[in-house]
Amino acid sequence: MTQAVPALPPPLVEDAVGRALVEDLGRAGDITSAATIPADATATAVIAARQPGILAGIDLAAATFRQMHPAIGFEPVIADGGPLEPGAVVARVTGPARPILSAERVALNFLCHLSGIATLTRRYADAIAHTKARITCTRKTTPGLRALEKYAVRCGGGSNHRFGLDDAILIKDNHIAVAGGVAEAVRRANAFAGHLVKVEVEVDDLDQLEEALRAGADVILLDNMPPEMLRRAVAVTAGAAVLEASGGVTLDTVAAIAETGVDFISSGAITHSAPALDLALDIGIEP
Amino acid sequence: MTQAVPALPPPLVEDAVGRALVEDLGRAGDITSAATIPADATATAVIAARQPGILAGIDLAAATFRQMHPAIGFEPVIADGGPLEPGAVVARVTGPARPILSAERVALNFLCHLSGIATLTRRYADAIAHTKARITCTRKTTPGLRALEKYAVRCGGGSNHRFGLDDAILIKDNHIAVAGGVAEAVRRANAFAGHLVKVEVEVDDLDQLEEALRAGADVILLDNMPPEMLRRAVAVTAGAAVLEASGGVTLDTVAAIAETGVDFISSGAITHSAPALDLALDIGIEP
Amino acid sequence: MTQAVPALPPPLVEDAVGRALVEDLGRAGDITSAATIPADATATAVIAARQPGILAGIDLAAATFRQMHPAIGFEPVIADGGPLEPGAVVARVTGPARPILSAERVALNFLCHLSGIATLTRRYADAIAHTKARITCTRKTTPGLRALEKYAVRCGGGSNHRFGLDDAILIKDNHIAVAGGVAEAVRRANAFAGHLVKVEVEVDDLDQLEEALRAGADVILLDNMPPEMLRRAVAVTAGAAVLEASGGVTLDTVAAIAETGVDFISSGAITHSAPALDLALDIGIEP
Amino acid sequence: MTQAVPALPPPLVEDAVGRALVEDLGRAGDITSAATIPADATATAVIAARQPGILAGIDLAAATFRQMHPAIGFEPVIADGGPLEPGAVVARVTGPARPILSAERVALNFLCHLSGIATLTRRYADAIAHTKARITCTRKTTPGLRALEKYAVRCGGGSNHRFGLDDAILIKDNHIAVAGGVAEAVRRANAFAGHLVKVEVEVDDLDQLEEALRAGADVILLDNMPPEMLRRAVAVTAGAAVLEASGGVTLDTVAAIAETGVDFISSGAITHSAPALDLALDIGIEP
Amino acid sequence: MTQAVPALPPPLVEDAVGRALVEDLGRAGDITSAATIPADATATAVIAARQPGILAGIDLAAATFRQMHPAIGFEPVIADGGPLEPGAVVARVTGPARPILSAERVALNFLCHLSGIATLTRRYADAIAHTKARITCTRKTTPGLRALEKYAVRCGGGSNHRFGLDDAILIKDNHIAVAGGVAEAVRRANAFAGHLVKVEVEVDDLDQLEEALRAGADVILLDNMPPEMLRRAVAVTAGAAVLEASGGVTLDTVAAIAETGVDFISSGAITHSAPALDLALDIGIEP
Amino acid sequence: MTQAVPALPPPLVEDAVGRALVEDLGRAGDITSAATIPADATATAVIAARQPGILAGIDLAAATFRQMHPAIGFEPVIADGGPLEPGAVVARVTGPARPILSAERVALNFLCHLSGIATLTRRYADAIAHTKARITCTRKTTPGLRALEKYAVRCGGGSNHRFGLDDAILIKDNHIAVAGGVAEAVRRANAFAGHLVKVEVEVDDLDQLEEALRAGADVILLDNMPPEMLRRAVAVTAGAAVLEASGGVTLDTVAAIAETGVDFISSGAITHSAPALDLALDIGIEP
Repeated sequence: MTQAVPALPPPLVEDAVGRALVEDLGRAGDITSAATIPADATATAVIAARQPGILAGIDLAAATFRQMHPAIGFEPVIADGGPLEPGAVVARVTGPARPILSAERVALNFLCHLSGIATLTRRYADAIAHTKARITCTRKTTPGLRALEKYAVRCGGGSNHRFGLDDAILIKDNHIAVAGGVAEAVRRANAFAGHLVKVEVEVDDLDQLEEALRAGADVILLDNMPPEMLRRAVAVTAGAAVLEASGGVTLDTVAAIAETGVDFISSGAITHSAPALDLALDIGIEP
Repeated sequence: MTQAVPALPPPLVEDAVGRALVEDLGRAGDITSAATIPADATATAVIAARQPGILAGIDLAAATFRQMHPAIGFEPVIADGGPLEPGAVVARVTGPARPILSAERVALNFLCHLSGIATLTRRYADAIAHTKARITCTRKTTPGLRALEKYAVRCGGGSNHRFGLDDAILIKDNHIAVAGGVAEAVRRANAFAGHLVKVEVEVDDLDQLEEALRAGADVILLDNMPPEMLRRAVAVTAGAAVLEASGGVTLDTVAAIAETGVDFISSGAITHSAPALDLALDIGIEP
Repeated sequence: MTQAVPALPPPLVEDAVGRALVEDLGRAGDITSAATIPADATATAVIAARQPGILAGIDLAAATFRQMHPAIGFEPVIADGGPLEPGAVVARVTGPARPILSAERVALNFLCHLSGIATLTRRYADAIAHTKARITCTRKTTPGLRALEKYAVRCGGGSNHRFGLDDAILIKDNHIAVAGGVAEAVRRANAFAGHLVKVEVEVDDLDQLEEALRAGADVILLDNMPPEMLRRAVAVTAGAAVLEASGGVTLDTVAAIAETGVDFISSGAITHSAPALDLALDIGIEP
Repeated sequence: MTQAVPALPPPLVEDAVGRALVEDLGRAGDITSAATIPADATATAVIAARQPGILAGIDLAAATFRQMHPAIGFEPVIADGGPLEPGAVVARVTGPARPILSAERVALNFLCHLSGIATLTRRYADAIAHTKARITCTRKTTPGLRALEKYAVRCGGGSNHRFGLDDAILIKDNHIAVAGGVAEAVRRANAFAGHLVKVEVEVDDLDQLEEALRAGADVILLDNMPPEMLRRAVAVTAGAAVLEASGGVTLDTVAAIAETGVDFISSGAITHSAPALDLALDIGIEP
Repeated sequence: MTQAVPALPPPLVEDAVGRALVEDLGRAGDITSAATIPADATATAVIAARQPGILAGIDLAAATFRQMHPAIGFEPVIADGGPLEPGAVVARVTGPARPILSAERVALNFLCHLSGIATLTRRYADAIAHTKARITCTRKTTPGLRALEKYAVRCGGGSNHRFGLDDAILIKDNHIAVAGGVAEAVRRANAFAGHLVKVEVEVDDLDQLEEALRAGADVILLDNMPPEMLRRAVAVTAGAAVLEASGGVTLDTVAAIAETGVDFISSGAITHSAPALDLALDIGIEP
Repeated sequence: MTQAVPALPPPLVEDAVGRALVEDLGRAGDITSAATIPADATATAVIAARQPGILAGIDLAAATFRQMHPAIGFEPVIADGGPLEPGAVVARVTGPARPILSAERVALNFLCHLSGIATLTRRYADAIAHTKARITCTRKTTPGLRALEKYAVRCGGGSNHRFGLDDAILIKDNHIAVAGGVAEAVRRANAFAGHLVKVEVEVDDLDQLEEALRAGADVILLDNMPPEMLRRAVAVTAGAAVLEASGGVTLDTVAAIAETGVDFISSGAITHSAPALDLALDIGIEP
């Protein structure tokens, strides 16, 4: 398979785009284009990158123009996950000028936001490419955009953590405290979970780690451990569980964390604090 | 009036929170808490800041806990727009432990995202507080969250640009090119717009500025002009229109731009590239 | 530009039509056509006017037939805003007979309601065509149909007032009373509003008018003033603000009001009390 | 039972009100009240009639204020269906001033529109009160508001025709033509319809009427017949079917039609062309 | 007319399918196919029956594949209502392999559920085919699927009872008790109901039946009467009202009930307890 | 913890109930109760079982009455998962009579459908209670009700398989064929899946089983194997993977399958073919 990132489910794309268009068009639509552009003017445009980065969201851009007007043609040039250089043409857009101008900002808002996430993810991924570790996201996403942002993480070469409270068990300190310890919490989780649900447990030290291993957790979250302790955790675990490191992860620290031998490094920042990537629509209009 | 930022319309709050909860709860709900926390356990928690910043989104956090379970008590301590120091308690949350844990992430995702925008906005606002200029947002917002993000800009002391394509006219270079010039574009806009709609036009140089002034634009967007040209634009305009500067606006450049005498400085970065502010839920549970 | 009225945003059209179809089809659909019309019968129909008037809503009619069945062809003959004589063919509809019959009433309900508004608006517009005044609508619209009804006002040659509580400031008597006077209310509004938001203030007499002018309101609403007082208001204002007259506006009084020199005359009646225009579907069916 | 008009189903009320509020609040909410009214100001208001008429929509008004802010108190004074004199207090509203002002227009839009329908319906009902005939509505309603408008017809003393294409069969001329005659169309309808579905057929003359009677139609629609022909139809029918007259129904003609002895007289005008009834909110605010 | 069962209204089909797809795709879509099937693989598949039965839901299956991907071809082979033998090909599906696999389960869930209802209905219908009685459904349907399930009943040769609380009056024992008797309850119903609404009343014995007949009920529900009493009820009624029997209806008893001469026999089991019919997708994939 | 089945997420409950009420109330609401029951009548009612079984859906019933009218009191007596004997009182309902009657059928439809699933699941669970195997559901659920039906499975003592296409990987024969074998398919799945996602693979014989074990699948689906082969599969696996048996599972066969030593036995029938459990509302009304 040459395409690394399978497409978003079409119903999710259509729904997100429909909401965004209604949000921007409001009750009267694009009154500027209505006032200044003849109804029969046509346009030829390209979406181009203005910064280097990784593309994400091309299907959302396509759907934005299509929903705005069926006569708009949209030809993608670069696939999601593809690298962008400044000036790189991402897609070509042709058709009636008014609806192209009306759809421009919504299409770019999707592309810039999601490509920003993909680009930051890729920077983390590149920083640890010499190790076996993979960068992974969290549930710290923008409300309403989780599926899209997690898709952008995949476009950037990252891996996805659970998508919600329902698709995996992640036992944190509060759950452990109430349950009366790591072992009992994992036991309750295994008793409760269906057989297609993984159980992860957060541990703060090596004692808890050994307790989690004995309890049979699938994944163990090593929270805020310094590299040396992570290294010892990797040795103690010896492949008996998947290890995920979290806490204090930045572009400066991620390589050292990865080199300890952990399997995954999770970062909220790649979704909640990625700056937008600069893309723009360059357009020529025939009145 | 002591409260600087009027509340978001309740229906918008309820709708955004409802979507976010469904997104996170998925089809099975919070299986971790269900597995590990007794149904009758109760909790006392505080939402606290871990970074200095400006608060935004407290009503969304309140609605998140309320929608999750009517028995949860939520007592706000700091109002939106208020300054946060590390450790500052933002709100107190008490009630059944399971739904408090289930709602935690959604509530924090709203608070961290919106407070991030408010905090970055405030940094720009502070940088130009010695001038008459105000920082203002754009339509470069996260799809689906425009009303919330623009509210966060107000919490940070910023001013709002138009909310969509429909509530003001903003004539850009493409509109001008098709219409045949600034004057004709503004004329068409004034002929088209209702009397409660302002007309803004983007100009690239002083010739266009003078044409826009003669045409009677309400607001003129000075695009990518160096400070010296902005200063001349202010002098030429002499109060006959509101002046907005855009392009190349960063925390390093914004003061110099503001000191030219323009009225507004617009920045997409305050909404599309604001890093999340770190807030957390500290919780004690009685099993 | 030859087309006076730019199209409604497609997402608004599709959503309104979808709701209306579901409302009429209910849970079992068109049981009369199902019972009496063969599944393979075809029909040729025209939508025709039975009264003189102004057309509005042709895109909604088109979307109604398209959503009901993709095989229905819809060819518009007259554009929105165009004049109708009794018998005038508005559109041709061809295709499978059952869904054409099923969609008939919804399509006509849109056309008759919106053309009714356009027609009444045009009567007001014609009555003041010898003046510079324009007729404008209010927020007194049918719940859920504001964008469509304001569009119909434009089709009838009217101008649009604000679309909601959020896109312009309109200070009324209660706001003034609480704020402590016209000047203070306008000052608060200007301090609060973004630079793309116009501020209108309602005044009852010439003293308030002068106060409003001094305060720098963009638009002044002259409420329930007799023509003579309106004339004096126009003279006092001398172009320093846009003037809107309201109150007691009927087809009998509107010319006298317009002749005072005001810029806009607002009427709730053109949206909330316009009788439907009579249009019908004439159909021939081939069994 | 003293209450003539049972309440609308609460879920329909809540949904209609929610949409209307979002439509009016837009993305920024009521910026005028936010700018000019202190957050802690309280208000005491009454909704009062300014015209004589019949009330409809009080539950929608109540829900509008409740959805806008839970602290608003709403006390209905007159029940739907009750007569209104100018000045009559319909309801009392107390609580925080800002949300009361924000909800005012939506609440009034429901009340004025629906009371307008109830009032016009009552005028028709009064005009035929000396006969056994009842006025009934059609499917010519405002798209999206059918349930509400049909409820308003009941408030005005009218009777409801079918609510959509699915809850009764109404065979019109086109169905008859395709089916090959009245008898065959009614036969198909009876064969198709469930036993809880009534079958009505439209006839143009007495021959068709006799055919419809022989075919066993439940209800016969006498379309556009002059009073004399209606009278003969009543005699021919002799109680064997319910008779509904339609066409040319106005306040001037309705009594003569009713006096022919028909059971129902249907009018599209009572829903599609009823002018709004004037009601207003009189408010006092404590800053 | 050769087609016994008119199609479901398209908007109902599209909405039900859209919800079902979102439910199954969740937030990440079909990760199995994404992982294992090349993006450019194509597939040829047939939907085939594995049990004898009656088909229902083919339009829902078609819409499922279409909504999942516009490039999927769907060719129906058997129409709804048609009989199925094991192995019978119901439809052919061709196109991109991934979305065909992703849509398979949703399409089958519709077909198996609705065909199950149609098949059970047909068994009842066949059991009484030698009588004039017809089997009819109730409001005991799966929440959210009433229109679809009632459609499946029609596909199976059954007749539809009312679709909701609003489209017919059905007076049960509690209504009778409060109203003070059958006669008074029917009188109230006739006074309240519009002329397109049928009135049915439930009776427990022959005295109540006679009271209901005198009161002029359109339909009388004979509740839980043994065959002998049903026979007497038929004789007493003598065609003056439609008779519906309910209670104790099984495949073993239905013929005896039908042979009493009642017009309709209602069964909740045909909708709420019909086992799914086994259909499957047989697929060949070209990688 | 004494409560075996944690509650459904409240937002899912409210949404499902809201849809079901709108579906049943239609456009005019409960016209029978409106016609026959005085507005001020009150009622006392109990929901009672008429068959032995397992309860599921009590929160949905509570929400149905609450959404219909806030003045209705609902007191649950038996918790979901609890056993029912004929006559057992499940809940008490008191308040205004009209809305209680209007909500009755929707509340019962939820309870009867979900309790039917819980009851059938419990029969399977009881049949294998002497083994370590657990009964588990599939994705063969009623469209739109998956979360509710999977919840009902838990109420009946069953375990949940994956909730959709997105929360676990299940490699079936077609995926294997295209990928080129079990090993390659599992390899691709492991490479693609996030670390919180389990990978299950379907195998037809013991060779494939050994290949799946070597490839490191988390769960192996033994499809349509006779008990003897299942027994050999258990021996070969020796605890290295979770084993799930499917195919030919009935109440007659399930014990023999369970006794082979497999971990899970999946059945579509417990969701798609469970007959409704009979519950009813017994009501007394005070006029």
